Amino acid sequence: MEPIRAFELSKEYLESLRDGIEFLDNDFIIQSLDGANVADIAAILDELNMDEAIYVLRLLDSDTSADILIELEEDSLVKVIREMEPIELAALIDKMDSDDAADILILMPSREREEVISHLQEREKSANILDLLRYDEDSAGGLMAKEFIRANQNWNVVQTIEEIRRQAEKVEKIYSIYVVDNRQHLLGRVSLKKIILASADTKIADIYEPEIISIPTHMDGEDVAEIMRKYDLESVPVVNAKNRLVGRITVDDILDLIREQSEEDIQAMTGISADVEESDSVFRISKARLPWLLIGVMGGLMGSQIIEFFEVGLQKYIALASFIPLVAATGGNVGIQSSSLVVQTLASKSVFDDTPWQRFIKALLIALVNGVVLASFVFLIVVFVYGFEYIFGLTIGLALFCVVLLSSFMGTVTPLVLDKFGINPAIASGPFITTANDLLGLAVYFGVAMYLLKL
Amino acid sequence: MEPIRAFELSKEYLESLRDGIEFLDNDFIIQSLDGANVADIAAILDELNMDEAIYVLRLLDSDTSADILIELEEDSLVKVIREMEPIELAALIDKMDSDDAADILILMPSREREEVISHLQEREKSANILDLLRYDEDSAGGLMAKEFIRANQNWNVVQTIEEIRRQAEKVEKIYSIYVVDNRQHLLGRVSLKKIILASADTKIADIYEPEIISIPTHMDGEDVAEIMRKYDLESVPVVNAKNRLVGRITVDDILDLIREQSEEDIQAMTGISADVEESDSVFRISKARLPWLLIGVMGGLMGSQIIEFFEVGLQKYIALASFIPLVAATGGNVGIQSSSLVVQTLASKSVFDDTPWQRFIKALLIALVNGVVLASFVFLIVVFVYGFEYIFGLTIGLALFCVVLLSSFMGTVTPLVLDKFGINPAIASGPFITTANDLLGLAVYFGVAMYLLKL
Repeated sequence: MEPIRAFELSKEYLESLRDGIEFLDNDFIIQSLDGANVADIAAILDELNMDEAIYVLRLLDSDTSADILIELEEDSLVKVIREMEPIELAALIDKMDSDDAADILILMPSREREEVISHLQEREKSANILDLLRYDEDSAGGLMAKEFIRANQNWNVVQTIEEIRRQAEKVEKIYSIYVVDNRQHLLGRVSLKKIILASADTKIADIYEPEIISIPTHMDGEDVAEIMRKYDLESVPVVNAKNRLVGRITVDDILDLIREQSEEDIQAMTGISADVEESDSVFRISKARLPWLLIGVMGGLMGSQIIEFFEVGLQKYIALASFIPLVAATGGNVGIQSSSLVVQTLASKSVFDDTPWQRFIKALLIALVNGVVLASFVFLIVVFVYGFEYIFGLTIGLALFCVVLLSSFMGTVTPLVLDKFGINPAIASGPFITTANDLLGLAVYFGVAMYLLKL
Repeated sequence: MEPIRAFELSKEYLESLRDGIEFLDNDFIIQSLDGANVADIAAILDELNMDEAIYVLRLLDSDTSADILIELEEDSLVKVIREMEPIELAALIDKMDSDDAADILILMPSREREEVISHLQEREKSANILDLLRYDEDSAGGLMAKEFIRANQNWNVVQTIEEIRRQAEKVEKIYSIYVVDNRQHLLGRVSLKKIILASADTKIADIYEPEIISIPTHMDGEDVAEIMRKYDLESVPVVNAKNRLVGRITVDDILDLIREQSEEDIQAMTGISADVEESDSVFRISKARLPWLLIGVMGGLMGSQIIEFFEVGLQKYIALASFIPLVAATGGNVGIQSSSLVVQTLASKSVFDDTPWQRFIKALLIALVNGVVLASFVFLIVVFVYGFEYIFGLTIGLALFCVVLLSSFMGTVTPLVLDKFGINPAIASGPFITTANDLLGLAVYFGVAMYLLKL
């Protein structure tokens, strides 16, 4: 038997853990994971198959298993909770914060979910979870937890410390204590630092900060993230329509959200339709990539029809074919630059943003500048370096200029329109829109060329 | 005179503030900004010109002005600090945390910087700032602040509360108290919650958590962000090579860093060379966009030479021209999908990642699947819908297949190579690499076609 080593995240450890599971060496498993961070244990379990992962979870104490469950990747999590007995899962959910519990329960079919909830020990916990499940997952209501410390403004410091003691086990990280009136309206916050430094009989009403930022339950998670970043908040209270305190959002959930959303944006831009990672199977990755590739291919096939339409002219001026990649690539580059600038602004909306009309004028001016520079450059090269006739150089230059204008316009307008309809504007840089723009660009290029060359 | 309204971030308020400045209506300015969040005031000052912004900063008390300065956008900040007297700036920097002070001072020429530091009131503060300036801005050392609470393991709770009281003004947000031995080695942390709930004579040694995550000064900021996200940390201690506690990084700085880096990635992908925003001037945006557009155009011009090289064959088979956009677009789409998957994995490095060799094999398999599906689809359409000869359909299909393989290979390998050399792998999806791939793809397409069609 090999000696038991301290836990270290490595492929070697993964192998020895697998051996430990196979030979039911529970002592090794428990001892080697002792003191390891739950996020690291979760990363290990993500690599195991479902039976192995459940075997390990059942060996560990329920506090640790609950924390691990929260940190699992969604794929693994779904498999594990599908396999666990409702009563077993309920025991773990009893140990979780309400927001983590709701995030896990939302992944289950509603019948199983209700069964798990019926097995929960605490009445309050199940009420909290049911409450959270009502909110949209990506809204402030869906992100908030019901565990936080609230103090009545009429309490003194000692009473508040008593409340902290009462809730200490439920609320792991405190940050601030939220101050409410008798009807649970949010009045402000008081930091733990102030509580420590104040004398025992100080009234909360005398030390709390009244000017604080709170979030309505319906606010979009992305906006919550931007507010927490801008105002340097590590936690923020959530209020309902009547300004009653109903929850709190902590920055750890926001960091996860930001990461998910930047991955979603990149996926929208690159046209990978499902949430895949490089470590997924060949089949799964291909399946996620093919739909958009096929759309691109269909666009290309339509493009071939556009070019065919101009075939008679092309026969006479075969050189027109040589400049197809130039025009297509430039149109694509201009469009992606334009849309990414707009998407960037949309991500941090400000009251000082330009109106759509001002944006449009500005985009037009930039397109004019870029268009003139690029078209002139191409004209000079085509005529003086490649030695084509003057009129041919003019044709290519002018066609390019038109494509730059068109792509800028589409790149600016598309994300604004998508955003208006509540669609992620990042897909404006994605394959569907890009393909459509390619086709338009191609038609413009040949249209302008045929007209100028009188073909 | 219009009535003084409460502060609200709006274009109307901006106008009345401008009027207030023009007519030297100091009462209006001070009263209307009273109680406003410093981040909001900074957003207003970002919209003013430099003289107006400085006028407002001088009116407000130095605590507020210092906080506003930290929140300004870099453009405005650089202008403002260039204009301020060193002694005036020093008075503001005296009010800041050392990390914010260092972030501002790093923007100044070294001579001015030294002068400002020489005017600082506190010896300790200037020593701290000089220490921080030695670190790379994007490393843990450059991100950390010198303000945090440390407790010796031999202290009891009362002594620790005394230390908190002593440092209370300097350390705004406490989160955790870091526990050290007599030689300043980091031993662990104790939360404020524990301090509040423990009895007065409890020894710190008995209540601190020993298993905590610390960060070495040289760690890259992006890795720090990933660790804080993964382990749900709102602050993390920074240690030097001898495990001595030298600073702490808080999550607010990490949120800013994440945002900057995701903007940088998008800019790398879209080829916008400088850090511009939609609100910048037409000239500035054009200047930032043109370099990459020109590279794309030059690529397109080279592409025209490649096509010209095959012109004789193209004359005979003019239909080959129609499929240029199809091949180019598919190559581009495949390449961007491949590189973005690799970039995503690189952003959260894990010990369970595949080796480069495994990645390469997997990318090849995926490319084979995608290539076969796309090529077969195109073959069927070209032959049975568009009615081309069998051999022509086979040519287009096979050429497309080769381009898919090539683009997958380049898309997988390029970000890995860039990352190896410490270059941001996101630029693999940017215009330079894409343009190079387009040219390769074009050459492969015509090469295969000419060979198969015996042209």
